[in-house]
Amino acid sequence: MAAQKLSEAEVIQALATLPGWTVNDGKLYKEFKFNSFPAALGWMVTVGVHAETMGHHPEWFNVYSTVQVNLATHDIGNVISNLDVELAKKMEEVYSS
Amino acid sequence: MAAQKLSEAEVIQALATLPGWTVNDGKLYKEFKFNSFPAALGWMVTVGVHAETMGHHPEWFNVYSTVQVNLATHDIGNVISNLDVELAKKMEEVYSS
Repeated sequence: MAAQKLSEAEVIQALATLPGWTVNDGKLYKEFKFNSFPAALGWMVTVGVHAETMGHHPEWFNVYSTVQVNLATHDIGNVISNLDVELAKKMEEVYSS
Repeated sequence: MAAQKLSEAEVIQALATLPGWTVNDGKLYKEFKFNSFPAALGWMVTVGVHAETMGHHPEWFNVYSTVQVNLATHDIGNVISNLDVELAKKMEEVYSS
């Protein structure tokens, strides 16, 4: 799927469906908390497989049971695109499963 | 294994055996480069299993095929310990395998 920059209104609309996500420094941002390091790492692996399939990858920082995620689309100028929203939704889906 | 703070001399000695590692903001630091995102993620999983077994975990940031690692030991005051050196060596071992 080709990446398309979202308008500000589209980003706001997307955030309404993404609990705990904000826009931070022009990127979609969320801090995920897990019960353990293996739980955090397992989530990263499952999300990572989806990211690779999408050809669209996160920036993420992990320490112990916390993962901080930043999503933006480098290919079209480091803006928030439909692919970032799609990846965020996948992260939520895996997180709540 | 209990964590023991390393002296400055011990840290310098350890760095001599850890190619590409530096001390950055009081932590052992290295940026690892991989051929692909799956290669980076696979390395993180293997290292992560060792980290969990050690009961000693990294701080790490991943974007695409790059992983930036910071190692310090929170339990004894966010200093560099023998466990950080051990984990760094394990990271090298997995990286070169």
